[in-house]
Amino acid sequence: MVDREVTFDFGRRARIGLAEAVLCDGKSVAQIEHIVALSQRRDHALLLTRLAPAAFAALDQGCRKVLDYDPVSHTAILGSCPAPAGPADVAVVSAGTSDVPVAREALRTLAFHGAAADEVLDVGVAGLWRIMERHEQLTSYRAVIVVAGMDGALFSVVGGLVGGVVIAVPTATGYGAAHGGTTALHAALVSCAPGVVVVNVGNGYGGACAALRVLGTTRADQQR
Amino acid sequence: MVDREVTFDFGRRARIGLAEAVLCDGKSVAQIEHIVALSQRRDHALLLTRLAPAAFAALDQGCRKVLDYDPVSHTAILGSCPAPAGPADVAVVSAGTSDVPVAREALRTLAFHGAAADEVLDVGVAGLWRIMERHEQLTSYRAVIVVAGMDGALFSVVGGLVGGVVIAVPTATGYGAAHGGTTALHAALVSCAPGVVVVNVGNGYGGACAALRVLGTTRADQQR
Amino acid sequence: MVDREVTFDFGRRARIGLAEAVLCDGKSVAQIEHIVALSQRRDHALLLTRLAPAAFAALDQGCRKVLDYDPVSHTAILGSCPAPAGPADVAVVSAGTSDVPVAREALRTLAFHGAAADEVLDVGVAGLWRIMERHEQLTSYRAVIVVAGMDGALFSVVGGLVGGVVIAVPTATGYGAAHGGTTALHAALVSCAPGVVVVNVGNGYGGACAALRVLGTTRADQQR
Amino acid sequence: MVDREVTFDFGRRARIGLAEAVLCDGKSVAQIEHIVALSQRRDHALLLTRLAPAAFAALDQGCRKVLDYDPVSHTAILGSCPAPAGPADVAVVSAGTSDVPVAREALRTLAFHGAAADEVLDVGVAGLWRIMERHEQLTSYRAVIVVAGMDGALFSVVGGLVGGVVIAVPTATGYGAAHGGTTALHAALVSCAPGVVVVNVGNGYGGACAALRVLGTTRADQQR
Amino acid sequence: MVDREVTFDFGRRARIGLAEAVLCDGKSVAQIEHIVALSQRRDHALLLTRLAPAAFAALDQGCRKVLDYDPVSHTAILGSCPAPAGPADVAVVSAGTSDVPVAREALRTLAFHGAAADEVLDVGVAGLWRIMERHEQLTSYRAVIVVAGMDGALFSVVGGLVGGVVIAVPTATGYGAAHGGTTALHAALVSCAPGVVVVNVGNGYGGACAALRVLGTTRADQQR
Amino acid sequence: MVDREVTFDFGRRARIGLAEAVLCDGKSVAQIEHIVALSQRRDHALLLTRLAPAAFAALDQGCRKVLDYDPVSHTAILGSCPAPAGPADVAVVSAGTSDVPVAREALRTLAFHGAAADEVLDVGVAGLWRIMERHEQLTSYRAVIVVAGMDGALFSVVGGLVGGVVIAVPTATGYGAAHGGTTALHAALVSCAPGVVVVNVGNGYGGACAALRVLGTTRADQQR
Amino acid sequence: MVDREVTFDFGRRARIGLAEAVLCDGKSVAQIEHIVALSQRRDHALLLTRLAPAAFAALDQGCRKVLDYDPVSHTAILGSCPAPAGPADVAVVSAGTSDVPVAREALRTLAFHGAAADEVLDVGVAGLWRIMERHEQLTSYRAVIVVAGMDGALFSVVGGLVGGVVIAVPTATGYGAAHGGTTALHAALVSCAPGVVVVNVGNGYGGACAALRVLGTTRADQQR
Amino acid sequence: MVDREVTFDFGRRARIGLAEAVLCDGKSVAQIEHIVALSQRRDHALLLTRLAPAAFAALDQGCRKVLDYDPVSHTAILGSCPAPAGPADVAVVSAGTSDVPVAREALRTLAFHGAAADEVLDVGVAGLWRIMERHEQLTSYRAVIVVAGMDGALFSVVGGLVGGVVIAVPTATGYGAAHGGTTALHAALVSCAPGVVVVNVGNGYGGACAALRVLGTTRADQQR
Repeated sequence: MVDREVTFDFGRRARIGLAEAVLCDGKSVAQIEHIVALSQRRDHALLLTRLAPAAFAALDQGCRKVLDYDPVSHTAILGSCPAPAGPADVAVVSAGTSDVPVAREALRTLAFHGAAADEVLDVGVAGLWRIMERHEQLTSYRAVIVVAGMDGALFSVVGGLVGGVVIAVPTATGYGAAHGGTTALHAALVSCAPGVVVVNVGNGYGGACAALRVLGTTRADQQR
Repeated sequence: MVDREVTFDFGRRARIGLAEAVLCDGKSVAQIEHIVALSQRRDHALLLTRLAPAAFAALDQGCRKVLDYDPVSHTAILGSCPAPAGPADVAVVSAGTSDVPVAREALRTLAFHGAAADEVLDVGVAGLWRIMERHEQLTSYRAVIVVAGMDGALFSVVGGLVGGVVIAVPTATGYGAAHGGTTALHAALVSCAPGVVVVNVGNGYGGACAALRVLGTTRADQQR
Repeated sequence: MVDREVTFDFGRRARIGLAEAVLCDGKSVAQIEHIVALSQRRDHALLLTRLAPAAFAALDQGCRKVLDYDPVSHTAILGSCPAPAGPADVAVVSAGTSDVPVAREALRTLAFHGAAADEVLDVGVAGLWRIMERHEQLTSYRAVIVVAGMDGALFSVVGGLVGGVVIAVPTATGYGAAHGGTTALHAALVSCAPGVVVVNVGNGYGGACAALRVLGTTRADQQR
Repeated sequence: MVDREVTFDFGRRARIGLAEAVLCDGKSVAQIEHIVALSQRRDHALLLTRLAPAAFAALDQGCRKVLDYDPVSHTAILGSCPAPAGPADVAVVSAGTSDVPVAREALRTLAFHGAAADEVLDVGVAGLWRIMERHEQLTSYRAVIVVAGMDGALFSVVGGLVGGVVIAVPTATGYGAAHGGTTALHAALVSCAPGVVVVNVGNGYGGACAALRVLGTTRADQQR
Repeated sequence: MVDREVTFDFGRRARIGLAEAVLCDGKSVAQIEHIVALSQRRDHALLLTRLAPAAFAALDQGCRKVLDYDPVSHTAILGSCPAPAGPADVAVVSAGTSDVPVAREALRTLAFHGAAADEVLDVGVAGLWRIMERHEQLTSYRAVIVVAGMDGALFSVVGGLVGGVVIAVPTATGYGAAHGGTTALHAALVSCAPGVVVVNVGNGYGGACAALRVLGTTRADQQR
Repeated sequence: MVDREVTFDFGRRARIGLAEAVLCDGKSVAQIEHIVALSQRRDHALLLTRLAPAAFAALDQGCRKVLDYDPVSHTAILGSCPAPAGPADVAVVSAGTSDVPVAREALRTLAFHGAAADEVLDVGVAGLWRIMERHEQLTSYRAVIVVAGMDGALFSVVGGLVGGVVIAVPTATGYGAAHGGTTALHAALVSCAPGVVVVNVGNGYGGACAALRVLGTTRADQQR
Repeated sequence: MVDREVTFDFGRRARIGLAEAVLCDGKSVAQIEHIVALSQRRDHALLLTRLAPAAFAALDQGCRKVLDYDPVSHTAILGSCPAPAGPADVAVVSAGTSDVPVAREALRTLAFHGAAADEVLDVGVAGLWRIMERHEQLTSYRAVIVVAGMDGALFSVVGGLVGGVVIAVPTATGYGAAHGGTTALHAALVSCAPGVVVVNVGNGYGGACAALRVLGTTRADQQR
Repeated sequence: MVDREVTFDFGRRARIGLAEAVLCDGKSVAQIEHIVALSQRRDHALLLTRLAPAAFAALDQGCRKVLDYDPVSHTAILGSCPAPAGPADVAVVSAGTSDVPVAREALRTLAFHGAAADEVLDVGVAGLWRIMERHEQLTSYRAVIVVAGMDGALFSVVGGLVGGVVIAVPTATGYGAAHGGTTALHAALVSCAPGVVVVNVGNGYGGACAALRVLGTTRADQQR
């Protein structure tokens, strides 16, 4: 009986302002279908992450039909997202083309929670003029999510340019001494710019959740 | 000539709202004395971190006299700190007695920038009732800096209880498989609570800078 | 000649009270079929672990027919299990849905040896109320097997709540800094709760064997 | 004010049957003196671990006088230990002379809680006859704490000989590829004997706490 | 033109008494076929290692026909092996069924060079009586190649029992903290038995070459 | 007899254009004194690296007198350096004050070989304007040695700005996830700027030797 | 809309003399096709690296037709390469057959930029005479790119023989303790020959770019 | 009572032909003095390794007087060594001056067991002519112990030149990516020369014991 295997935390959004997301890695098709069906019955919106195209394709048709699936970010959304209000307070900045899937996971997470966000693409440090041209724009956000792999040099460059919260999301881009994102992760942690904060390698969802916490819509005193 | 060795970044506070701090590890006595003298002549306030008692004692008397030194956090401050205004928007939570020095580095950094902060001590997870009693208090802050070593279980517990920004500062507390704080660092990065952000092991200064970015006093648009 | 390749340790159960299990990873189809046939001829019950569905499907039909296979835990049992006597002295607690396969390996191993056990699911630390509700129940077991991945925060939480033997079984759940279960493993080893013991990542079988040793049915003085 | 820095968990013994121990590594002289004074005022017995001779010598005379200090194991005890009742149910087995300090930490922890224990010394695997001679004796204990460094081969040898709980305590004995105890730790985790459990490198205290949990005196249902 | 890509070291056997072997991992089908054809034309015997069944099947029929392929050890031999003379001076000892492929690579390498060898199977340490029964036999060899994974406890046990050269060949058997053979490798390097020597993980070929060097047939002064 | 322990490679300068340097780490006082005396007798100039002030002070007075010692870079020179001819073709760029000792080792090595070089200090990425102001200057060198620790972001920034050879020398500046320079090293190896080359952590000597190879004065065809 | 995802750095060749190459690992078929089409429209030559045969085969026919694809090195070139002028100033030396693909990536990169280069194959250290025979030839190049895996002994051997720039390109050849090229990488970094420089594991492209920087055709002052 | 802490394995020499050596690292002064006194009373010769000069100086005068101490290798010998008979069958080859202490530990161990050995110094690979000149000499030994740090290139060079047993003893010489000898260790394990065997970093004692096993004086059948 699959049912008793899932005690879904439907109360999390009320408690900390962030809906529980379903990390699909390591879950069986039956488990995912069950969670979606359960949420649908209770009329809960749901965000699924790390749902690879092959895993999405393996879901039954009824399940697939109710999900809004994005093959770039490997995310799916059940239910509708709140319309974003006002100008964007968050930017998602990515270093190169290979970092786009992680940046998109962050953008989808922000959209799911109704937060407006801007996307800034292909501003890697090897061509420094690309990020310098965006300097003034970047100083206007309350949070900047920076998505970069390889040596993660972009984290320090952005951290030295802007005063908002800088959230580093390392990616696995690169090979050899990139060590699957570990080098970018460590670089973010020892950034020479003060106060840069870091989430796990490839965790666009976590970077977005951190930005939502910054916006303050998540805290108890804001929800009253 | 020592002078030309230091191109101090006095403009950083204007640019990103955070004063440059001097990491004293790996700097010679002469270099530290020089930086302090230079700052004093230009009437700049200055925060020095990782200044061990023995290194402080090795400074010449004139230098020591102008510094406000705290042997617990290994920090020194040149010049006066702005008076904090209003109730505390930040809390610094530590798991155990051995984590206090890092927590104090965060508190000193916040004080140096004029930010009010509360301190919550000895709320490690092995005695869970200690943190549960503080639950309601913790939900009121815009940022909670959590300082913990060993298995870093406190990061997830706090991250699951509050909606504000949760900044994990891992410490080197523990031995063997604690790997000098690496286990707590990794635990913070893979926290099961969404949106927990992380800074380097033992980096109380960085955790505080991140909190200052959250408060928004650091951004260009706030400074006008 | 395959036969001489296997000197199966049929005497182990007599010696230390635990039957030898066959770790199927890294064994060929022919070797597994041979071991099963040999055991069947000698009327020995047999537990096979890490037998993936594809590997099970590759066995010849005669072999498959005599095995009781469970695709969730990747275990197979040859022969009948002793009926469990009395109330459960062991609980198997898991943090999330992705940890269920390992938890089930532990439960199957306990059943194979005739030990009654309870299963407690989905009590991860991010929703702390879930484990707190089970506090009293958990204090009644002689051994609690805790199965968790990611940051392994559940090990310390349970270790601080109960006085029985707490056996941590880390899992590979998570990605990036989860390092395939190494972070959860290290967290278990440096748990801030005293006396938590640890087995290898994903080793539900080993966790169950440890619990059987706790129950004392394995010792020589008990077997007389 | 040192006092508010320590919220000592005096209730732990009532809750899980194990008194809180003070890990002295990373604590200042003032903090240790304070904890001892506080415990003495409340008439609590106290176990201090990892208190190096130099750190003990730095304590004030009044503090030193009330402590029973053992320089081999680096432990100190405040107050009297309960007299052990009945024959020993636990053995502490060590591989070589360099492992003795860790073995003694385990023995002191057992004594502090009133548990009788036997000590078996110098039974390393390179001279296999030494452990073989003790085979029958070892099968009589409910828990055997095995303390070994280098390649940790003793863990598997004991685990294959006895049916009681085998608790591996790896040590840092050895150099180079011993990696400060990590090789012995990993060897324990992948022991070819089933159900061997492991604690942190050098954690004699933790090994003893695990044995106390096995004896069952720690559980709520036993304490009534 | 493939031809110029291979400057095969046909003189090695003359120089150091060991024929060059072809490590097929990372070589293309065309390169392997070319090397075999070249050797055949020059009437050189050839040993190929790490030639997986799928790679062997991909070779053209002419090539496959001249090779003596063994699917267990993934080795192929071109040409005939010298007949072994006299009783075996080398033993190949393996801990468990999963270690057999590596043990067979060693045996095939010995056979290729005409050295007689005995095989001792399934003598892992968890059932210590299995190796103890072979004690006297093992003392008669000039070299004992020990093949074991997991915690590599067998290396120390054999090293403490016999006075001949003990060559440890770690294998990747095990999972989690076995780290793909690294734990067994490190255990071999810090063996508590003196003078145990070690080759790379899974390198049965290298272990056999070392034994051949021990037998002394490889040295210049022997070849005259 | 110390003499036979040192077969100094006096012919190296003739062979590859680089004089052998003496790495003093791990050498005894007697060995260093012996090498200096031997070189002096043969009228060979000599460069000593990693000679800590305490080690220099321990040398006998005669030895100290003939050495030109620099306590910042821990280098000593025996004999006179060739006068540099023409404008500088090499620049040594360092990120921060703590990187100066390594930068100075590079400068001393260049001076020892008679190569003119410019020093550019304190141009870390957190204050990006500092390196941007030097852009035009940096494009004029044939080789730029970049010395940086922490996240090594400066390597990619310089590598993206200039077309000469960019030699990254990582340093151990930083703590925690800086891992003693390993993070900066890995960052250099996966730099997003093409063709950046790397030497060992802290190896200012090696970086300078590489620059000397670039200048071409080292090659056989140049020396005729 | 794929178009806005790629801000290709067409200006890089003008700025630092090296054309931007497209690392195809981690890019989708659509992204690669888009970049090729964009470059073709703007009449830019383009080098694509790490384009596996399967990925090349998945491109649409129009795209495949305009590319000059090399299945050994996994590189593709769009547009024509400048004809190399004069004798080769660079050599690419490889240790064994398995290192050829990386060596070929370097050769293709050099050809793409119009630099003449010689290829020296199969000169691994186990047959030392092979590299010794090439000694005189090797001293004539301005840069020698050395491609080797396993223990990387060839880097030191070449570095000790020649005075030109020696660029070590470690490869993943080998298994077990080869750690996917990390051992060869570390060996290159601690080479006992002075001034050997290193690029990432398998980075033939980077090694070639470094050589191009050595030739000086990349620098601003050369381009006028 | 120290006495019962040491069950010295006096029978080892009879069993495997190698006397037990005392690794003094991690043993207290009292323990070392006790072992020496015990051995002296029983008239056993004894080899002590890793006895640093400061530890030797701390022993009581009576103990120091009976020991033959060598400060270079940190070894001490109690009792007289058998006179070596016949020409040397073993050579100890070291790469550089910093490797001498480890080489000497091997030589002292050989002398302690009465084996004649030759010493070959300073034949590092950066000056290849040094080892080439010794080629013919090296082919005459039954075992060659090669002691080298940094990149360990010497292991492959010797392994490719001689047919005797080649025993690699890696050392910690070098810094940064030398990782305390791990790089040399890994290089030895993946040597491109076949049949090179390896012992732990810095384990000159172990290398010598392996050579003694090669000489065959250790085996049971030889001792009759």
